[in-house]
Amino acid sequence: VLLETVACGICGSDLHCRHHAASFVAAARRSGLPIFDFDPGEDLVMGHEFSGRVLACGDGVDDLAEGTRVAAHPLVREDGRFEAVGYSNRWPGAYGERVVVHASGVLPLPAGTDPQHAALTEPLAVGLHAVNQSRAAERGSAIVVGCGPVGLAIITALRLRQVPLIVAADFSPARRQLAAGLGAHIVTDPREQSAVDAWRDGGGRRDAVLFEAVGVPGLLDEAMRSAPARSQIVVVGLCMEPDRIEPAIGVLKQLTVSFVLGWTPAEFRECLDAIASGAIDAGSLVTGRVDLDGAAAAFDELARPEDHVKILVVP
Amino acid sequence: VLLETVACGICGSDLHCRHHAASFVAAARRSGLPIFDFDPGEDLVMGHEFSGRVLACGDGVDDLAEGTRVAAHPLVREDGRFEAVGYSNRWPGAYGERVVVHASGVLPLPAGTDPQHAALTEPLAVGLHAVNQSRAAERGSAIVVGCGPVGLAIITALRLRQVPLIVAADFSPARRQLAAGLGAHIVTDPREQSAVDAWRDGGGRRDAVLFEAVGVPGLLDEAMRSAPARSQIVVVGLCMEPDRIEPAIGVLKQLTVSFVLGWTPAEFRECLDAIASGAIDAGSLVTGRVDLDGAAAAFDELARPEDHVKILVVP
Repeated sequence: VLLETVACGICGSDLHCRHHAASFVAAARRSGLPIFDFDPGEDLVMGHEFSGRVLACGDGVDDLAEGTRVAAHPLVREDGRFEAVGYSNRWPGAYGERVVVHASGVLPLPAGTDPQHAALTEPLAVGLHAVNQSRAAERGSAIVVGCGPVGLAIITALRLRQVPLIVAADFSPARRQLAAGLGAHIVTDPREQSAVDAWRDGGGRRDAVLFEAVGVPGLLDEAMRSAPARSQIVVVGLCMEPDRIEPAIGVLKQLTVSFVLGWTPAEFRECLDAIASGAIDAGSLVTGRVDLDGAAAAFDELARPEDHVKILVVP
Repeated sequence: VLLETVACGICGSDLHCRHHAASFVAAARRSGLPIFDFDPGEDLVMGHEFSGRVLACGDGVDDLAEGTRVAAHPLVREDGRFEAVGYSNRWPGAYGERVVVHASGVLPLPAGTDPQHAALTEPLAVGLHAVNQSRAAERGSAIVVGCGPVGLAIITALRLRQVPLIVAADFSPARRQLAAGLGAHIVTDPREQSAVDAWRDGGGRRDAVLFEAVGVPGLLDEAMRSAPARSQIVVVGLCMEPDRIEPAIGVLKQLTVSFVLGWTPAEFRECLDAIASGAIDAGSLVTGRVDLDGAAAAFDELARPEDHVKILVVP
């Protein structure tokens, strides 16, 4: 399906990939994930969090009228293999006016959905997947370290799952405020009170579920040190550098570290429906909009996390 | 309950603690586990894998006749708090003629149990706990990296749980032979074929359950690199040094790393019963016996992993 881009969110992975494409590809290759394999020496159009308008459909796709507004999985499929739109030399992403996706991942927007907000389906699905892979719902509480786009998506999903105690930590007052607005019951500045202490003050007991949504070296080690025994640490932030941990801390505390990525089609669908129904306030995550010419400057601006959560590129 | 030691196995943690007691205690303190807290400047009698003969019981314990042979949890309890026998300045372990334990963890040996083999209950329970904390039974296969005492205990437990494909890797031919004898279906020398490749050759598909039972720096990183996507890595070896991992590999592969420790009373009981019934061939793990005077030399000898699995100290 050929789409005209309506809006495309700028993702932290793209910020990284802009400057470190070679190491990004190398890590993907070491992981045996051909989906993220591209030639960093060739041109690349990124952008994988998008909504669009149907321009044309390939043979055999007859149920999508031209002009239909849609959210879409950023995927194409050839010969039974998936390739990631936006991390492929052959399949340009949505920081551009046109994008091609596989029909199986195209979801017409429910009536009344803001077409730009629908671009947030993908990053919100990442948060929902992280929560679904965690024990947060059964434990009844969660700690979210880092309230950038990923952390806020997790908070949104925890709220969607009606988790009764959500504690969020971030250095930025603006992000803490957003976290509270999206449903965190307690927000803390880690310089004043650690996330785990704030969780205990809020009634957290025994083992915890702690989301590491920062993705810089040292944070996993800190999470392992601060987590109560038998906790689950869910690593969502994509830290591309080697990191140092102390396995003995993990063993003595009997921790589980769950590394998560992506989403399922059902989670993607659930997030789109929640945006459509207003169960998720996607608009509050959008802190800026730029056109294609403004995209490069927006990348620079996102390096200052105080000011922004999600900037939409609107061609 | 005051016991006369029948036999006490030498554990890898003791080998480490002999030379690095301070870092051992420091890690335990950082983990908030008071059970392993002792003063490394004071005398310490180690030894926590033991069987014994009842000499005397404290007030209120009237169901253990003098002379009863028992296995026992290496624990005492005072004021509702447990302390680890063998890692306590106050409660000497079983590298000695007498040991005191809490009555609640004392298990009379089933009829016909070899009283020395009963000393293997504790380390075998560690393996059973690791297997129970893993998805090995539901996945129907497992990879065990390292066939020292911990790895062999895991293989024993996998066999007890009737896991149909058990692949074991070790550099030592003697240990590989033991692994095969205890029930590993495929054994491999990692210099010739990696554990994961051997598992695939044996029919392993998709995600794996991989036990890291070596406990030296670099092995977790290697496990994360070699494991198929969505695998579970179970860390059982107690690596006391800082270690380096690449979190991006974990995220891109969506790995779960489960750090495990210890056992439950039910698992301890099950292992004792399996030793008693012959379902576990505990004797094959015993590669040496020394008296108290021979213990120090036995510690040195265990640094050469080719020759030994478990040496029993028999006072």
